[in-house]
Amino acid sequence: MLSVLSDDYYMDLAIREAEKAAVEGEVPVGAVISCEGAIVAKAYNQTEKLQDSTAHAELLAVTAASAHLGSKWLPQCTLYVTLEPCIMCAGALYWARLGRVVYGASDDKRGFMQYGKELLHPSTKLEYGVRHDTCKALLQQFFALKR
Amino acid sequence: MLSVLSDDYYMDLAIREAEKAAVEGEVPVGAVISCEGAIVAKAYNQTEKLQDSTAHAELLAVTAASAHLGSKWLPQCTLYVTLEPCIMCAGALYWARLGRVVYGASDDKRGFMQYGKELLHPSTKLEYGVRHDTCKALLQQFFALKR
Repeated sequence: MLSVLSDDYYMDLAIREAEKAAVEGEVPVGAVISCEGAIVAKAYNQTEKLQDSTAHAELLAVTAASAHLGSKWLPQCTLYVTLEPCIMCAGALYWARLGRVVYGASDDKRGFMQYGKELLHPSTKLEYGVRHDTCKALLQQFFALKR
Repeated sequence: MLSVLSDDYYMDLAIREAEKAAVEGEVPVGAVISCEGAIVAKAYNQTEKLQDSTAHAELLAVTAASAHLGSKWLPQCTLYVTLEPCIMCAGALYWARLGRVVYGASDDKRGFMQYGKELLHPSTKLEYGVRHDTCKALLQQFFALKR
């Protein structure tokens, strides 16, 4: 049984968000933000639906969490996202001062780690590879169907 | 007299946006997006009002221009912004494939140029230093009053 507070538990919720994106024809990336055990935001990539390049799962989740908590800073929060954030999203996580960032699959092309962990706020803890295979398979299946 | 189509003209509109931010106690950064001579978006920094770290002038302007034009890509557009975009905003400008980006003052601390022009899309033209002194003075005055 999964502990309610485990990283796997929250990443599974992020994966469920990514699956919603896939159903809607969006690149399947999902995100969840937890705050002291509670979910304060869930979001998935909506760039096609909204025709807005900035509508990545992480950005939508940060905006939703900030609205929910009434704070532009989220040091007590953990963001779970199925794919390594891009530069834009890493920049957003910097400004929001996330307490912790956990991602699943890597993104060698557009991921922020090509520039290093320094793109995040110095106080942000980073973890990756959680549910890696499931997160990666979701993306691979999506792009295989597109071809 | 300023030509309606000059960079100075559009940057002056962006400066006016930045001034609105200052009046509202926000870090004074303003942005304007033009598309074939027409203004399709105007925005200013609203991170305090919205308590949302992602509410930078550039991000709000990209979202507004995309909504106006019904397109997540903005290759026919020029973004004018009073301050060098941060990493987050440069990432957004990459995804939106802006045709051209023009900024006023430099930001040695948080500006994207510390990582190079490569953060923008390869097809995006870049210019800076337009109305530099006015853009910089706005920020200096704001922070002098805060001290």
